Amino acid sequence: MTAQILVVDDVQANIKLLEAKLSSEYYDVITARDGFEALTQAKEHKPDLILLDVMMPGMDGFETCKKLKEDIELSHIPVVMVTALSEKSDRLKGLESGADDFLTKPINDMALFARMRSLVRIKLLLDELRLRDKTSLQMGIQPDVKNAFISDVSGARILLVDDDETQGKQIVAKLGEIYTVEWIKDSEQAMVKSTQENFDTIIISTLLSDADGLRLASQIKSHVETRNVPLLVFVDEDDSRTMFKALEMGINDYLTVPVDKNEMTARMRTQIRRKKYQEALKSTYQQSISMAITDGLTGLYNRHYLNTHLDNMVKQSLQNGKYISLMIMDMDHFKQVNDTYGHDVGDMVLKQLADIIIQASRSTDLAARFGGEEFVILMPETDPQAALGAANRMREIVEAYEFSIGEGAPPLRKTASIGLATLHPDGDSGESLLKRADEALYIAKNSGRNAVKVSTKMVPSGW
Amino acid sequence: MTAQILVVDDVQANIKLLEAKLSSEYYDVITARDGFEALTQAKEHKPDLILLDVMMPGMDGFETCKKLKEDIELSHIPVVMVTALSEKSDRLKGLESGADDFLTKPINDMALFARMRSLVRIKLLLDELRLRDKTSLQMGIQPDVKNAFISDVSGARILLVDDDETQGKQIVAKLGEIYTVEWIKDSEQAMVKSTQENFDTIIISTLLSDADGLRLASQIKSHVETRNVPLLVFVDEDDSRTMFKALEMGINDYLTVPVDKNEMTARMRTQIRRKKYQEALKSTYQQSISMAITDGLTGLYNRHYLNTHLDNMVKQSLQNGKYISLMIMDMDHFKQVNDTYGHDVGDMVLKQLADIIIQASRSTDLAARFGGEEFVILMPETDPQAALGAANRMREIVEAYEFSIGEGAPPLRKTASIGLATLHPDGDSGESLLKRADEALYIAKNSGRNAVKVSTKMVPSGW
Repeated sequence: MTAQILVVDDVQANIKLLEAKLSSEYYDVITARDGFEALTQAKEHKPDLILLDVMMPGMDGFETCKKLKEDIELSHIPVVMVTALSEKSDRLKGLESGADDFLTKPINDMALFARMRSLVRIKLLLDELRLRDKTSLQMGIQPDVKNAFISDVSGARILLVDDDETQGKQIVAKLGEIYTVEWIKDSEQAMVKSTQENFDTIIISTLLSDADGLRLASQIKSHVETRNVPLLVFVDEDDSRTMFKALEMGINDYLTVPVDKNEMTARMRTQIRRKKYQEALKSTYQQSISMAITDGLTGLYNRHYLNTHLDNMVKQSLQNGKYISLMIMDMDHFKQVNDTYGHDVGDMVLKQLADIIIQASRSTDLAARFGGEEFVILMPETDPQAALGAANRMREIVEAYEFSIGEGAPPLRKTASIGLATLHPDGDSGESLLKRADEALYIAKNSGRNAVKVSTKMVPSGW
Repeated sequence: MTAQILVVDDVQANIKLLEAKLSSEYYDVITARDGFEALTQAKEHKPDLILLDVMMPGMDGFETCKKLKEDIELSHIPVVMVTALSEKSDRLKGLESGADDFLTKPINDMALFARMRSLVRIKLLLDELRLRDKTSLQMGIQPDVKNAFISDVSGARILLVDDDETQGKQIVAKLGEIYTVEWIKDSEQAMVKSTQENFDTIIISTLLSDADGLRLASQIKSHVETRNVPLLVFVDEDDSRTMFKALEMGINDYLTVPVDKNEMTARMRTQIRRKKYQEALKSTYQQSISMAITDGLTGLYNRHYLNTHLDNMVKQSLQNGKYISLMIMDMDHFKQVNDTYGHDVGDMVLKQLADIIIQASRSTDLAARFGGEEFVILMPETDPQAALGAANRMREIVEAYEFSIGEGAPPLRKTASIGLATLHPDGDSGESLLKRADEALYIAKNSGRNAVKVSTKMVPSGW
């Protein structure tokens, strides 16, 4: 996959070399000569990946990386640090400042391109999710998502697949300080476990004695349920073939054996953060959708949702020859509550009424706020007699209920009027069912309120 | 990227051969012996790609492919047909039955893997979008999206980048029968044009005399605006290096030169359909979000949106030392309308009131339905005097308006009461501003209705 790469280095010759390499592979290259310019270029172009030199005058690579990761608009862009240093402590410093990987000069081209492809692939998926998040933001929905790299990683759940006793114990001990670690030695069991439970990262050793770790990794990445779980593999230091293969098939990161525990911790943190970030982006979407179908005050379904489902449920009932009844309830003299006590108290009362409705209806019923003080309860598989029983019960509960209107104030007593209709198999629609219940409600209101009335259009006997 | 592949062939030896090839590349393989089994397997496993033999007893590959593409749950899965035939008419038949590509036996491994990687990559992005669509569906929002392969392609806009006069003319003539084609010979102009306009597919010749077509393709795929536009390249029949490179960098399809016009048309159709499908999935999301912030009846913003923006706008006004005023309007005796004429007429009246509000407020105002017959208009940069003028004007317009309540019926006259408050820089919040306006509304109601009252907490002079 092609992508736009920002190359940051203070030595012009190094820039030229990398630029030529990347261009010949048809990457789109932009460049920066120091950390400050890197931040400016990143903000302006939003590249897909940043290759960042460590040793630069002014602001070094670690500092630049930190600044990139602190910026909400840039924190999701993968950063690969490039350096002549190969000290463990430097690698760690880079990873801890938020870098996704660390490559040592002179750069091995195959390693560079394999890593880039893998990071760009993940970034493109994040872009899709971020785009959605932006839409929500523009439309006034405040997402919970702030920054890709400030997510809390504590409590994350890790699955470790490794049959090396000594190594396994050490890793469980180290990761167990922060995370909950599940250690499995058998690869078939691991496959089952990975689909049954929701892990935040899966670690697989490619040095299993009885099984092919890469095969397991491939299966996990091929399954819809586990595809987006970050996958990290252990590979033998000298086995670059397995390492390339793993990156190509879509694993998220790798560690060479013997495993450096601190580097492992740093790399794990990056993976878990990305997973949490991804989940936060997805949950914004869920929230938006959920807002679209619920009534903000009471938490019941809203009118739009009722209308959509009314038609579907009516159609289903007609197809299956089942009864379906609809109750429409209106609190009597509700206007007085608002006028006497103000809207805040009015809202309190409506919330309590909604709670009564939830308590008194079955889980198969669909309860919605229809507007103002009007509520609709759609009752599938409910014949006229059962519906009448439910409506009378509901009316009695409301009548007996003491509505709290704030601390200190004596509770309020209210009543409700209810209109009821049962679907007529011949010619009734969702709309007409609702209309008939509404007409019955009107009669209940005119008969003196606190009453249940049934639509006069009767269901023929024998149906 | 690893993926699950369904291999369909009636000859066991062929299955074994492909299975071994794919497995060694760490693909997860499932198999089927005929078209019927292929459909069953596809439904059960939802693979990421299907390799489909053409010549099979019972139901042949063309028929199987058609059935796959007709199924809403399967139509987005890429299908590559594999055949011993190499007749043009067969290729065409395959493409027209919805296949994404056509490979001739014996299969060239590099070509197979390059194509698979490219198709799987696109499929994974579609999966993300489809997942969202499913959420909407589960939550009762009916998306417009039905099937990936029934989209209407007419009217699509194509950008052709080719400096071969003869070939260009022929292509424009052929594609012009169905699409709107823009033909550009210069690659730099093409880059500018591609970002400025919204094309449904871009075709680039890699045989340009002055420029590198692949470089242009890479730039287009690297730009956020054009990244998701299907990209098709022309490559020389013998230039497999360019072909692989193009697939690897993420182009969507290719055609060999000399271009077979019918094959081009079939391949274009596949690309445009996918683009339309992708857009339909995205627009479901936009609709869901838009539903979340608007009031279903009137189309004004809903209470939730108002609450979110109220705080932001109040904060801004405080920061900039600007006035901000809030009007809350309640239609007088609205309950009578519902009780006398029913809810349908009540809704008609509310819609007309919302239209009045939209007409009478400025584009910088935020108008929301607060609930029932209550509306809020938030007016930035509006001092107490201007706010009072606006509120009185609004009250007069409502008083003079003839509300239509259905054909034949005489129009209805109604009045409204309005409460008004201007933000106090010392201690006011969004919440208290709203509360003060609501108190003023309460006074307006008690003073005999059809009146505007201003919150008694005055703004100090000189602010």
